[in-house]
Amino acid sequence: MQNQIRKFVESTRFQNFIIAIILMNAVLLGLETYPQVMSRIGGLVQFLDLLCLGVFIVEIALKLFVQRLSFFRNGWNLFDFTIVALALVPGGNQFKVLRALRILRVLRVISAAPRLRRVVEGFISALPGMASVFLLMALIFYIGAVIATRLFGGDFPEWFGTLGLSAYTLFQIMTLESWSMGIVRPVMETFPYAWVFFVPFILLTTFAVVNLLVGLIVNSMQDAHHEEDVERTDNYRDEVMSRLESIEALLKERRS
Amino acid sequence: MQNQIRKFVESTRFQNFIIAIILMNAVLLGLETYPQVMSRIGGLVQFLDLLCLGVFIVEIALKLFVQRLSFFRNGWNLFDFTIVALALVPGGNQFKVLRALRILRVLRVISAAPRLRRVVEGFISALPGMASVFLLMALIFYIGAVIATRLFGGDFPEWFGTLGLSAYTLFQIMTLESWSMGIVRPVMETFPYAWVFFVPFILLTTFAVVNLLVGLIVNSMQDAHHEEDVERTDNYRDEVMSRLESIEALLKERRS
Amino acid sequence: MQNQIRKFVESTRFQNFIIAIILMNAVLLGLETYPQVMSRIGGLVQFLDLLCLGVFIVEIALKLFVQRLSFFRNGWNLFDFTIVALALVPGGNQFKVLRALRILRVLRVISAAPRLRRVVEGFISALPGMASVFLLMALIFYIGAVIATRLFGGDFPEWFGTLGLSAYTLFQIMTLESWSMGIVRPVMETFPYAWVFFVPFILLTTFAVVNLLVGLIVNSMQDAHHEEDVERTDNYRDEVMSRLESIEALLKERRS
Amino acid sequence: MQNQIRKFVESTRFQNFIIAIILMNAVLLGLETYPQVMSRIGGLVQFLDLLCLGVFIVEIALKLFVQRLSFFRNGWNLFDFTIVALALVPGGNQFKVLRALRILRVLRVISAAPRLRRVVEGFISALPGMASVFLLMALIFYIGAVIATRLFGGDFPEWFGTLGLSAYTLFQIMTLESWSMGIVRPVMETFPYAWVFFVPFILLTTFAVVNLLVGLIVNSMQDAHHEEDVERTDNYRDEVMSRLESIEALLKERRS
Repeated sequence: MQNQIRKFVESTRFQNFIIAIILMNAVLLGLETYPQVMSRIGGLVQFLDLLCLGVFIVEIALKLFVQRLSFFRNGWNLFDFTIVALALVPGGNQFKVLRALRILRVLRVISAAPRLRRVVEGFISALPGMASVFLLMALIFYIGAVIATRLFGGDFPEWFGTLGLSAYTLFQIMTLESWSMGIVRPVMETFPYAWVFFVPFILLTTFAVVNLLVGLIVNSMQDAHHEEDVERTDNYRDEVMSRLESIEALLKERRS
Repeated sequence: MQNQIRKFVESTRFQNFIIAIILMNAVLLGLETYPQVMSRIGGLVQFLDLLCLGVFIVEIALKLFVQRLSFFRNGWNLFDFTIVALALVPGGNQFKVLRALRILRVLRVISAAPRLRRVVEGFISALPGMASVFLLMALIFYIGAVIATRLFGGDFPEWFGTLGLSAYTLFQIMTLESWSMGIVRPVMETFPYAWVFFVPFILLTTFAVVNLLVGLIVNSMQDAHHEEDVERTDNYRDEVMSRLESIEALLKERRS
Repeated sequence: MQNQIRKFVESTRFQNFIIAIILMNAVLLGLETYPQVMSRIGGLVQFLDLLCLGVFIVEIALKLFVQRLSFFRNGWNLFDFTIVALALVPGGNQFKVLRALRILRVLRVISAAPRLRRVVEGFISALPGMASVFLLMALIFYIGAVIATRLFGGDFPEWFGTLGLSAYTLFQIMTLESWSMGIVRPVMETFPYAWVFFVPFILLTTFAVVNLLVGLIVNSMQDAHHEEDVERTDNYRDEVMSRLESIEALLKERRS
Repeated sequence: MQNQIRKFVESTRFQNFIIAIILMNAVLLGLETYPQVMSRIGGLVQFLDLLCLGVFIVEIALKLFVQRLSFFRNGWNLFDFTIVALALVPGGNQFKVLRALRILRVLRVISAAPRLRRVVEGFISALPGMASVFLLMALIFYIGAVIATRLFGGDFPEWFGTLGLSAYTLFQIMTLESWSMGIVRPVMETFPYAWVFFVPFILLTTFAVVNLLVGLIVNSMQDAHHEEDVERTDNYRDEVMSRLESIEALLKERRS
């Protein structure tokens, strides 16, 4: 019976059914944001939403039954499990934020559709190669936040009052949003040399971001290059070598 | 007679004439935006505009006569047909928007000039490879819009009142325009933890856009690489292999 | 005597002297912007500036004497000539703008320093390959400006009153500066569907700019790739082929 | 005894201890920005901070004792030395800025952690290749600042009053922050043709930045390409050549 269920759970038809349920759930959760719709057919929408949740719970229960503990070894299963479990947190229905987070269920479409899954896995696999640059960015932000808080925190508590506020403001400055007219020019009215801190900060973080980008491009190119070309070249090389060896063997054999 | 018309329609002289008419039409439609010009020679401008339209209609009629139904199998013909047909929609002259859209006729210069056509075809051919990332972006936007509408819609109806308004505001935030000073800082005055939603949203969408860019670069490089180098390499490889084979054959032949 | 002058003009010492004069001139023109400096030693600064101009005129006269009409065949010579001639335009000393443009003389450092010259030549050589995309951008801007002027010109004359104003505003929107909070949101208060025009405009122009960037990268990579690798590979290939041929010849010779 | 200290200083355990001290120092300097924390345990925090400084001084003294004058030949040692010495400047404790700069000590984590050190060395090694473009940018900025100061300095002293202010404003414009709504539109109300200066300035600087980016990508690709592929290819080529030579030798030997 376990085998039959396994076949059923892994069938394309069942997977497409789950994707359809996810998309229907997405539409329902979108409808919930329209007060006019909810005042008319709110009951129906919430009932169908519960139904979708029920299907997800049954699906995960079936997978758990089939795969037992190995279910939790797959990152995507854990992802699905967490998202569905969010809806079952006691009191989960009372809090606005938790209710809003139900829309995250739509992310299950990523784990259900192989093409999207591959894109996300590509994103994630690119992260470790950028760990050093991320660490460096964190360092720059921490140092920048401490300096900004100590120097400008007293006069501009709204922007640089605490380490957290400073980090947020520096993030805004890194994205170049209103960095000059909004932040640095007002600061420079009190501290005329503030640009000595902010302009190098912008140059440094921009340069680090550019290096992240360059790293990503170089990595992707090499991956693309390798999967395709290298194999063909290797096959060709092996063939040339084996032919040369057999020619040499023929010649040596005759000599003896 | 059909053959003669075909030759005429496909002649370089006729195509250059059409490009000239398109450019003249572009100038005319530009002139229409100057009230001083229109109050003086408005009649002439509108007459010449109608003349241009007449030329386009005759051109398409000729092409239809020559190519019959196969006319509609070419995307660029459909493009030309739609643009010219826009001007013939009944009531098309009454509505401001439809009249403004007549300038889209200038786009016909793309279908008429082979170099521009190739650039646009290059753009379009790059789109399918980015479909997965686009789908992912749509997902992120939909989820983001639902969350933002539910959490912030009540207090900031102008920015997050409906799914549509939220999607527009999130697009603005993705382009980094006034995201902090204009939107997130005001929101954070009511919801101090709003940055938990917005900062990851910016990082995610920026990362997705960067991946689009990287994908485009890698694709273009491979195309450029392949058309040129691979052919030469393959020719060389084939020659080496055939020579090695003939040497081996000579040696074996002698042995027997 | 012409030969001696040619040697003198082309000597490294003379070229370094000219670079030194250009840099001194740059400093002088910078000093002119400080009123305190000019009120004290203004006469000296202007005298030295005239001296620099005199050196440039003598330099160009010498080059003209040496190279005769072939002087004008070199783009960089024309560049130097125009910049220096600017200062001799009658009335050139009366107009503020022309006086400000004297600083362009500093650009002569580019034509005088070979390394900078190569960078600029690299920039310029990249332009023709991007001509089609530039043309396409011009097309998008013209069409966008005509549509924006017709639709929004009446209600927002400051931004979209004429074709020129619209083009400037669209350029601002393309750079994403205040596009939403500054322009599109106010416009959407009058025309709720204005985003149907502006959002695709942003996507289109951004995509075109990205394609320019990708084209530049691919071109540079191929240039870099070819100069270095291809030659080595070709040498190796030629050697392999000649050796294989001589082996085959040896074998055939013996057979006969 | 010098040898024993050298072993101790270069041991992984000691280096990890130093990294731990650096991170502890980072946390302490972060804590100092919270007034509530400082009012309660301020004495302890400052004592531990002094302790960290003491450890750094001992570490550098040990290294100096072991490496003598060759200590100063390593750039990273100089970096460490300067940062620690900053804290010992007489009066260093009195000035707010110098006290804030103590956080720069955290940068020592870069010289202490080999992975981060390599990333920074990569950054720095990319700089010389971009020297020409940086020089060109400096030239553009200087010329732009002089022109802007002369033309707009009188009417907009806050933005273009001096060369320094102009350079800062032009940097802001290069980053595209509020360039139009904040700066150029107000300027255009007085000087309607100001866009003739600002729009080309934006295009030029953006194009130069793009060229920097392209240069970085091409460089990185070639580095990555070479380290890996070229070696393998060279090995293969050498093997093919030696085999072909031995075959030819065998054939010639027999002929004689």
